[in-house]
Amino acid sequence: MKSALPKAAHPIGGRPMLAHLIASAEARFDRIVVVVGPGMEALEAIAAPHPTVVQTDRLGTAHAARMAEALFGEGDVAILYADNPLITPATLSRLREARGSADLVLLAMRPADPGRYGRVVVEDGQVRRIVEWADASEAERAIGLCNAGVICAEAAALRRWLAAVGCDNAKGEYYLTDAIAAASAEGARVEAVEAPEAELRGVNSRAELAAAEATFQQVMRETAMEAGVSLRAPETVFFSYDTVLGPDVVVHPNVVFGPGVTVHGPAEIRSFSHLEGCEVRAGALVGPFARLRPATVVGEGAHVGNFVELKATELGAGAKANHLAYLGDASIGANSNIGAGTITCNYDGTFKHRTTIGADVFVGSDSVLVAPVSLGDDSLIAAGSVITRSVSPGALAFGRAQQTELEGRGAALKQSLRARKANKETV
Amino acid sequence: MKSALPKAAHPIGGRPMLAHLIASAEARFDRIVVVVGPGMEALEAIAAPHPTVVQTDRLGTAHAARMAEALFGEGDVAILYADNPLITPATLSRLREARGSADLVLLAMRPADPGRYGRVVVEDGQVRRIVEWADASEAERAIGLCNAGVICAEAAALRRWLAAVGCDNAKGEYYLTDAIAAASAEGARVEAVEAPEAELRGVNSRAELAAAEATFQQVMRETAMEAGVSLRAPETVFFSYDTVLGPDVVVHPNVVFGPGVTVHGPAEIRSFSHLEGCEVRAGALVGPFARLRPATVVGEGAHVGNFVELKATELGAGAKANHLAYLGDASIGANSNIGAGTITCNYDGTFKHRTTIGADVFVGSDSVLVAPVSLGDDSLIAAGSVITRSVSPGALAFGRAQQTELEGRGAALKQSLRARKANKETV
Amino acid sequence: MKSALPKAAHPIGGRPMLAHLIASAEARFDRIVVVVGPGMEALEAIAAPHPTVVQTDRLGTAHAARMAEALFGEGDVAILYADNPLITPATLSRLREARGSADLVLLAMRPADPGRYGRVVVEDGQVRRIVEWADASEAERAIGLCNAGVICAEAAALRRWLAAVGCDNAKGEYYLTDAIAAASAEGARVEAVEAPEAELRGVNSRAELAAAEATFQQVMRETAMEAGVSLRAPETVFFSYDTVLGPDVVVHPNVVFGPGVTVHGPAEIRSFSHLEGCEVRAGALVGPFARLRPATVVGEGAHVGNFVELKATELGAGAKANHLAYLGDASIGANSNIGAGTITCNYDGTFKHRTTIGADVFVGSDSVLVAPVSLGDDSLIAAGSVITRSVSPGALAFGRAQQTELEGRGAALKQSLRARKANKETV
Repeated sequence: MKSALPKAAHPIGGRPMLAHLIASAEARFDRIVVVVGPGMEALEAIAAPHPTVVQTDRLGTAHAARMAEALFGEGDVAILYADNPLITPATLSRLREARGSADLVLLAMRPADPGRYGRVVVEDGQVRRIVEWADASEAERAIGLCNAGVICAEAAALRRWLAAVGCDNAKGEYYLTDAIAAASAEGARVEAVEAPEAELRGVNSRAELAAAEATFQQVMRETAMEAGVSLRAPETVFFSYDTVLGPDVVVHPNVVFGPGVTVHGPAEIRSFSHLEGCEVRAGALVGPFARLRPATVVGEGAHVGNFVELKATELGAGAKANHLAYLGDASIGANSNIGAGTITCNYDGTFKHRTTIGADVFVGSDSVLVAPVSLGDDSLIAAGSVITRSVSPGALAFGRAQQTELEGRGAALKQSLRARKANKETV
Repeated sequence: MKSALPKAAHPIGGRPMLAHLIASAEARFDRIVVVVGPGMEALEAIAAPHPTVVQTDRLGTAHAARMAEALFGEGDVAILYADNPLITPATLSRLREARGSADLVLLAMRPADPGRYGRVVVEDGQVRRIVEWADASEAERAIGLCNAGVICAEAAALRRWLAAVGCDNAKGEYYLTDAIAAASAEGARVEAVEAPEAELRGVNSRAELAAAEATFQQVMRETAMEAGVSLRAPETVFFSYDTVLGPDVVVHPNVVFGPGVTVHGPAEIRSFSHLEGCEVRAGALVGPFARLRPATVVGEGAHVGNFVELKATELGAGAKANHLAYLGDASIGANSNIGAGTITCNYDGTFKHRTTIGADVFVGSDSVLVAPVSLGDDSLIAAGSVITRSVSPGALAFGRAQQTELEGRGAALKQSLRARKANKETV
Repeated sequence: MKSALPKAAHPIGGRPMLAHLIASAEARFDRIVVVVGPGMEALEAIAAPHPTVVQTDRLGTAHAARMAEALFGEGDVAILYADNPLITPATLSRLREARGSADLVLLAMRPADPGRYGRVVVEDGQVRRIVEWADASEAERAIGLCNAGVICAEAAALRRWLAAVGCDNAKGEYYLTDAIAAASAEGARVEAVEAPEAELRGVNSRAELAAAEATFQQVMRETAMEAGVSLRAPETVFFSYDTVLGPDVVVHPNVVFGPGVTVHGPAEIRSFSHLEGCEVRAGALVGPFARLRPATVVGEGAHVGNFVELKATELGAGAKANHLAYLGDASIGANSNIGAGTITCNYDGTFKHRTTIGADVFVGSDSVLVAPVSLGDDSLIAAGSVITRSVSPGALAFGRAQQTELEGRGAALKQSLRARKANKETV
């Protein structure tokens, strides 16, 4: 990956690969243990509350599995990989179900290009052996079924097969494939469960990370459309792992959903909008060019227009902020109108303060609301005002200089500037 | 579609599917009648001024056709479907031309995946029958030619064949396919006209709606490029049904054209721009991050820059609004310069008012123009002014407070805030 | 191309096609001569400092080559085409290396659709002849190897073969292909070097220009990912020919890099950002919705947020401009905080002036800084101020009107407006 970040911490759909895998595993297994390399503290935070075990010496997949051996407990144990982030709970269910008839179950796939994957030799429904590509005959290389590396077995048996794995090979490593061989040697029944390549393809480069992201996005887009969401140009809408869009939400081209977004339909999210950690209620109209940041709620029928940023702000039902505004740490009552260029000064360089705006308030354009401050219901702020003290309900507040006019001075000033320029140029 | 909106009202290229079909039909037929389901008033507005007939009981396609029977008049009648929005006038011409040699003409296609479509059995250039997939033999299923459902026949004959259709089938519905059978039974000559699948594929889900949108966009993009428009990344430019771009218009990646846009070349539309209902004249430079809303005209050689919104505004030739501005209900003269952060206050919460700016005006940054107001030719507005009264030609106007400075107070204030924070944290 | 611009001046990746070709040629040839059509002065500027020769009468490719004959000098000469802008230095190296064994070398390709390209007949490793499609037999048309038009030979020999080309054909033009025939006729050894179609496909329409751009972008994206750049959605990121991104730069969907951008990793470029001519240093966070214009430097760990434009501005290490700001011709010290809505008035309509902001300065929201002006280290500007005079270090500066409140007037004003509206509507 050519990265300072551990591979499993790289995100897909706004969530680390490891977290994707853990979420799927949590749906089908009671206990999860994460084996990490040394110096990968970033992964411990992602794995929490699940325990992590450090594999100090990186001596192969079977060695990694043995690091967690003490925590295997009883019952089924599966060995999974953080760079298979797209494996689904449904596939894990099939893995466990297959344990009903087999002592060891492995996941296999039929890649479009089987390349140098190990081939799975199946006879009479049983896996006879895994043949590494380098050792495979022509006939074996022609087999389309490839080993995906994932296995599942009963804890005690798995411990025994792992213990049987040696490191008598070119790299001196302990390979999990050899545990399968150990099981076969013992006469255990080994079966393969097939899953789609898209779920099992590993992520070993930025290009493969981008490919996994593309697969993830495609699934999210199709799922949304099946649920009654209109995506005018699905390929230009980017989801996070937890995006929730209701029926009759219309999403125009070029919209990015960061983590934590819920939009209730009917609602319209226009082009070039960027949403994170927010809730958009029915009847709302967002964008184009809207930025909704965490802890924001856009109320029923509210409008958020172009070049408007909302952060930790509740915009009441029917309220409007249609042009060029920054509303941070604010609550805005129903049907209030926030003029173009309005800015809440929520930060004094050290502390953040709240702005409270009542219902039916009209905030004139280019107003500055210096928090903490509150505007009473039905109050009116004149355009261009700097508001530093709270305003009573129904009041008209203003804070701006009187207009003065100097006859002819505009033209004169421009002329003199142009003359200076001409002068400079002739020098 | 899982939608509260009737299917035929869902848009493609910014126009309801039904309106697409009507536009194509208008090009080739004198009279149009739209049959709608009950509770679909939304469609009546789209169909207008064409009449609509309500099919109260939804008893199949032939039953729907009979609803409009009284309005067939004389001459050719075609039965079309609103979820075939991409059918072209050229295809409808071929449909009518084929009536020269046939009593009944149907549209057929050769889908990449023929699936469960009814197959069209042709012998000696005549359609012998339509075989539903369920009733088809192996050999018939191997036929690639599929029935698209569209038919055309002379009014009186069509009435007769429709009357012959019964409902003796599993669902108890009246199928238009049976009218074709009735025509054949009468010895009428039936012919098929083939058209591309992309025109005839139905829209029955959000995914199919997105696919139809993609087909529509591809046609629009190719047509624009053939006319001499540069699309740096065609797949990222979204057109509406009526977008008009002249030769040597250059469109950068990620531009959305809403309905009603005309751009005269040469002109440049930069990335992340969103245009609706506007005219952009030759030599203009728009974006990146520009929003042009309806009733806007960008004059010859004018510039609209980033984070600038224009609504119902005429920007004169050579005028510039390059940064962070909202100009609504305004007219701006030639060669005027609108400073960064300028805002027209066009709305008082109840009425909209106009701002009139002359030629060669220089509006300083962060000015607020409270409409109705006008700025005379060659006038100059000082930065940060709130302008509430009209300004004479050539005048200099300002309305801002004097600057005051308190020595050392900035550092002291920041220090005290930090001290308070530190205090809080140690408590 | 249906364009007023010469074809070779149309850009790919932000650089004219001709400039792409020249850059590749410069890497492998000492001298470059550009033959242009009449009235194509635009190309001379692109070609500079290389000389151009005008082909006044456009009498074919061999005729064009002869225009430059006097400048051939000695040694290898290659004839290249500006509408093959994606030809690589590696391919040109192979062209020259092949000259070791051959008198004349031509470039050939195997297009997916060979169409009407001339076919290259090779026997025993030697090119025997080029057969034009119109003259080709069935067997010859089945040949996949096509002539790309590029040739390389020793100067004196090439002059001789060009001189042998006649114009006895339908169009009366001199074709370079006939120079190959002349070489063969003389018994010279002619060889073909194969290169990928993507490098050699010509650009003759806007659609082909878009296709070449797509090929170029794909190469840039893959190269970036191989170097350790994360592109969440590679197909939505647009590069220029000289974009430089370091390892662990994360680029979110929908980012456009204009010419002259360097980003040092780790750094994050969020969605809907547009960068040109700028440097972004390690630890910086840019976007979403950021516009960086030429001569901008974003310092280590600095933040540029939404709807912020920087032009010819240096943002110091750890400094922040997070919301709705225009900073032009400014330098901003380390750890300063630029409030939302801050605008530098850098232009008086004639001259541009600079704004200098020290370290640890806090600029309150919606401040207007009228350049030339400087803010001392650790100073503080109150929100909503218009600053026209420089501020001392540590000082607090403000320039805004006092707030006034009129009890009940807000509600009364709104009521009277509504009454007027109701009155109008009943009239």
